[in-house]
Amino acid sequence: MTDSDRSPVTILGLGPMGQALAGAFLRGGHPTTVWNRTAGRADALVARGARRADTAADAIAASPLVIACVIDYDAVHAIVEPAADVLKGRTLVNLTADSPERARRTAAWAAEHGVDYLDGAIMSPTETIGGPAAVILYSGPEDLYREHRPALASLGGAAAYLGPDPGRAAAHDVALLDLFWTSMSGLVHAFALAGAEGVTAAELAPFARGISDLMPAIIDEFAQHIDGGDHPGDASTIVSALASMEHIAHVSHTHGLDTGVIDAARAVARRAVEAGHGGDSFSRLTETLAGPAPVR
Amino acid sequence: MTDSDRSPVTILGLGPMGQALAGAFLRGGHPTTVWNRTAGRADALVARGARRADTAADAIAASPLVIACVIDYDAVHAIVEPAADVLKGRTLVNLTADSPERARRTAAWAAEHGVDYLDGAIMSPTETIGGPAAVILYSGPEDLYREHRPALASLGGAAAYLGPDPGRAAAHDVALLDLFWTSMSGLVHAFALAGAEGVTAAELAPFARGISDLMPAIIDEFAQHIDGGDHPGDASTIVSALASMEHIAHVSHTHGLDTGVIDAARAVARRAVEAGHGGDSFSRLTETLAGPAPVR
Ligand SMILES: NC(=O)c1ccc[n+]([C@@H]2O[C@H](COP(=O)([O-])OP(=O)(O)OC[C@H]3O[C@@H](n4cnc5c(N)ncnc54)[C@H](OP(=O)(O)O)[C@@H]3O)[C@@H](O)[C@H]2O)c1
Ligand SMILES: NC(=O)c1ccc[n+]([C@@H]2O[C@H](COP(=O)([O-])OP(=O)(O)OC[C@H]3O[C@@H](n4cnc5c(N)ncnc54)[C@H](OP(=O)(O)O)[C@@H]3O)[C@@H](O)[C@H]2O)c1
Repeated sequence: MTDSDRSPVTILGLGPMGQALAGAFLRGGHPTTVWNRTAGRADALVARGARRADTAADAIAASPLVIACVIDYDAVHAIVEPAADVLKGRTLVNLTADSPERARRTAAWAAEHGVDYLDGAIMSPTETIGGPAAVILYSGPEDLYREHRPALASLGGAAAYLGPDPGRAAAHDVALLDLFWTSMSGLVHAFALAGAEGVTAAELAPFARGISDLMPAIIDEFAQHIDGGDHPGDASTIVSALASMEHIAHVSHTHGLDTGVIDAARAVARRAVEAGHGGDSFSRLTETLAGPAPVR
Repeated sequence: MTDSDRSPVTILGLGPMGQALAGAFLRGGHPTTVWNRTAGRADALVARGARRADTAADAIAASPLVIACVIDYDAVHAIVEPAADVLKGRTLVNLTADSPERARRTAAWAAEHGVDYLDGAIMSPTETIGGPAAVILYSGPEDLYREHRPALASLGGAAAYLGPDPGRAAAHDVALLDLFWTSMSGLVHAFALAGAEGVTAAELAPFARGISDLMPAIIDEFAQHIDGGDHPGDASTIVSALASMEHIAHVSHTHGLDTGVIDAARAVARRAVEAGHGGDSFSRLTETLAGPAPVR
């Protein structure tokens, strides 16, 4: 292994994100070997100077630092288990998203097979990779993170080391993806609803950006409520939110739109109101979500 | 009626938002009359110079411009219908959130009773009211909007006039609240999930802000996809989103958290994948949400 920032790197997986990672290493001057189950996905990278390996084992053999970025950890294991011998003594940095529990199991598998293992999670889209806006979280052995930090710096942006528990990056990832994909579901539904009301997506977009601009302050306020266990409703209450959600469901239903997400959201708010918390802040729902008998 | 910016104003409804509106008019130097079903809510405003009316009719009689801001349009009608005679010849600006269809019905009711009517929707939280960050949408007769614009300017920020259809502000409102409350549901769930994984809200918050920072660019990109009817998945696909949502649901379930929202969200994504759109951008779900037989 080397801590030079032009050290050879192997990328396993060339979906949109794997391609972005490989592209960033190429731009950073690293000899970059790529492999993907569907070989054709490497073509554009090969044209830019990447070396295509015919098998995952060949790809792994090419570099001391191996990055995996595929759809989930089942896919990671399908790729690396048959090549465990070759991977031995190398470092696997797994930038695939999955659960914290899977991350810990993959770390245990790696330890059993003499593979150095860092788990990671990418929190920003493909176009950020290699630039200042990239956000990548890592967890696992700190010395390993330090050793590979110079090479991983080619991926750009803010890399955050979250500690030795290999599941910790995935714990952040799954919570952040929960926020992301739920918000994205709200976004497509909002566009669908606006469209049904004769408002084009271009007309809605500037106001939708205004809504997303409200979130950072709310995130900080809710974090204080939640960590403090106190949910004052002086600025806005769950009862008021529930009334809003009922309008959304009603108008959506009128237009024949799927109401599954908003129905599930208002069921949670309704439960909080029924439990006597209607005058509290929406942040109180973190407790409602844990159910009548929270497992803690 | 007057277009002076110190003209008298009446506020009906003193929930958190009604109080914020009344506070902004007081700061703007308007003689401000307030009424609320639960009279005690006026106390702090009275201490700041507002006049408390004993009945809604008395409150309405005090000003040519009457603002209603209560929980929904049923509450608006419960307040204004018994006072229709007094309201006649005055302007009612209804800043309550409800559906576009209700807004059009309330506009029709107002027209029948000789009441000038503007519908409005407040898109920013109480603490923005009266300042530059306030966002309020209006629709209804343009001359009426122009006439009251100077007084309404005391509410601050960016007021947007959306046209003569009285339902148009509510059409934007319901879509934007859809985005907002769905995102808020994702936020509380993300905090609950992080908490279950031993990550405090304060630890998650900076990364959660990072997620919300991604939304503006996505909103613009999706608006182009949607208005163009083309949903290229080169940067990220529905299949990949679905895998993420499955991890979120799985980890949530493991911790005994409610999975209603994410289950409903992934059901929509799954339907798109089953219909052969798995390689498309998530923006394609605007079409999936309209169902197999969209009502258009
Ligand atoms: N795209 C983004 O904006 C983004 C952002 C942050 C994080 N991420 C994360 O990055 C990871 C990769 O995402 P992605 O966008 O590149 O696309 P993806 O659709 O999540 O993953 C596609 C990759 O997985 C491979 N794959 C799937 N099943 C496999 C199997 N059984 N065996 C071997 N390979 C398999 C595919 O190979 P084939 O080409 O042969 O199908 C392809 O290389 C995911 O965990 C995702 O959540 C992505
Ligand atoms: N708070 C925010 O951050 C915010 C932001 C944007 C928009 N809005 C919108 O502004 C409107 C008001 O919201 P809010 O936060 O002030 O609180 P809210 O809980 O939505 O409304 C509370 C107000 O409604 C009144 N009310 C409820 N039922 C009534 C009835 N049957 N008859 C007469 N009055 C009735 C309450 O009177 P009592 O005091 O007697 O119960 C109180 O004045 C809502 O449409 C909301 O969506 C609020």
